[in-house]
Amino acid sequence: MSKEQRAQVDAMMRQPRPEGPRSVEALRAGFTALMARMIVPGNIRTTQTTLGNRPALHVEPDGGSRAGTILYFHGGGFVFGSPETALSLTGHLVAKTGFGAYSLDYRLAPEHPYPAAIDDTLSAYRALLDSGTDPSTIAFAGDSAGGGLAVTTCLAARDASLPLPAAVVAFSPGLDATRTGESMDTKEGIDPIFTRNALEYTGAMYLAGADPHQPLLSPAVLADLTGFPPMLIQVGTNELLLDDSTRLAARARAVGVDVILDVTADVPHVFQSFAGVLDEADEALDRAALFLTQRIAAERTAPTAAP
Amino acid sequence: MSKEQRAQVDAMMRQPRPEGPRSVEALRAGFTALMARMIVPGNIRTTQTTLGNRPALHVEPDGGSRAGTILYFHGGGFVFGSPETALSLTGHLVAKTGFGAYSLDYRLAPEHPYPAAIDDTLSAYRALLDSGTDPSTIAFAGDSAGGGLAVTTCLAARDASLPLPAAVVAFSPGLDATRTGESMDTKEGIDPIFTRNALEYTGAMYLAGADPHQPLLSPAVLADLTGFPPMLIQVGTNELLLDDSTRLAARARAVGVDVILDVTADVPHVFQSFAGVLDEADEALDRAALFLTQRIAAERTAPTAAP
Repeated sequence: MSKEQRAQVDAMMRQPRPEGPRSVEALRAGFTALMARMIVPGNIRTTQTTLGNRPALHVEPDGGSRAGTILYFHGGGFVFGSPETALSLTGHLVAKTGFGAYSLDYRLAPEHPYPAAIDDTLSAYRALLDSGTDPSTIAFAGDSAGGGLAVTTCLAARDASLPLPAAVVAFSPGLDATRTGESMDTKEGIDPIFTRNALEYTGAMYLAGADPHQPLLSPAVLADLTGFPPMLIQVGTNELLLDDSTRLAARARAVGVDVILDVTADVPHVFQSFAGVLDEADEALDRAALFLTQRIAAERTAPTAAP
Repeated sequence: MSKEQRAQVDAMMRQPRPEGPRSVEALRAGFTALMARMIVPGNIRTTQTTLGNRPALHVEPDGGSRAGTILYFHGGGFVFGSPETALSLTGHLVAKTGFGAYSLDYRLAPEHPYPAAIDDTLSAYRALLDSGTDPSTIAFAGDSAGGGLAVTTCLAARDASLPLPAAVVAFSPGLDATRTGESMDTKEGIDPIFTRNALEYTGAMYLAGADPHQPLLSPAVLADLTGFPPMLIQVGTNELLLDDSTRLAARARAVGVDVILDVTADVPHVFQSFAGVLDEADEALDRAALFLTQRIAAERTAPTAAP
């Protein structure tokens, strides 16, 4: 355990911030500045591309990737963030697995509220399938709102009768727009990043009046996960969103889905971003990499030369 | 996923068995015969030894172990089983981690009811500590009743003010002698191995009249896990004992313990025993090995020559 590291990260995330709601521009700039401090592994390369109708960042190991594709969805409350802000997470997954990743620049609220993001992520998945990528070599992954998208894109794909990916990895996913998890109250003040008000502020931009009682908005409360691929959910105990994860895991178990609920104590939302600084972050990413490697069929993962 | 393999294992475990309660001798012989069919890795060596007051099987990698010790507790409802019946599980953990293991031949009921088993496991842990083994290099692990002992020995160690081990790994642990988990009812008929009657038959031998409402008998219901080391709990969904695991994980989360609840669907009790036959078994053991390797301090795990 790294009690000192956990305490340092907590203190860092508790830095005073401006009072009151911030403008969308200020939220975006602040998040970009915060995430620029995270460590990106050196042994990857990135290329701008498009997937479906949207820009995407293609992330590969320096030496070329083996057959396996991570479709990554960044966090940021559906309002901020980009493939670049999540590059530490995506890059570490790529470096640790040897798989390539596409990190999608899906449309954001308030300019593009629900269901724009899911339209874009599903379109990106369709584009991967249309390009001939075997779904058994694809995993969805994401953090925070993007972890929610990893789950809801799988729901949308199933509803569209598409073949499902081989796995879902979600880091501190947001899975409940009804905000009814017990941890929404019990972790207030313990969570160094979020307050209920802050979540509801950006959440309202994404909802734009939509009823949150829908599986695509609140899968932890409403989704039928039957037929889902194996899922890995990683979450910290210092999170308002903790019970989004615990409830989704319970729903998955109840319908016969393989699910690993991997809880690290005394760490904040998406603690994996602190890879290189916090031992728990690196260890959690190593566990995620093993899970991805196990789920993407072994016979398809022979090393291939760089293009 | 290996749907065919999961179905085969289920069918195998559903083989007809004699009606009605069997004698202790028949239970022991039947379990020994069943577990003798499991695959033991070839690259380990075993030595008979003693630990505390009890015999133990020392299991090491062929090439010598690195610094790290697994104290293993076999399954068998506190009535049957031995280090030999668990050798597939212990051996795979040793082969995959490079750590040595001591698998304890603790006393069994009905000859030696509660708390004889915990007296023996705690005595074995004391013996390891007394020999100078750093607790940060020790993990407790076990399956079924032995998974329960991995947890309760940790409770007993804490109550005795001993330093705690670095990790606990429990495969399908039995953690509730009150038998109040929902899965005790919802998984009846789905569990190919156990019935409530069968569990209560051997359970009564272990209790021998003791009140099951005690933390050392029902930790999933009653234990305060404060201060526990990180835990990995692996369990199948086709188990009466599923909710022993889910409830313990919830208790651990609630008091700030790192806990991974790793649920595999459509597999039976201690499915890891089918390593070499069932892909999910090998994969689960690989995840357990990574967890153990992460938790046993890296600086203490430099390879050492064989003695």
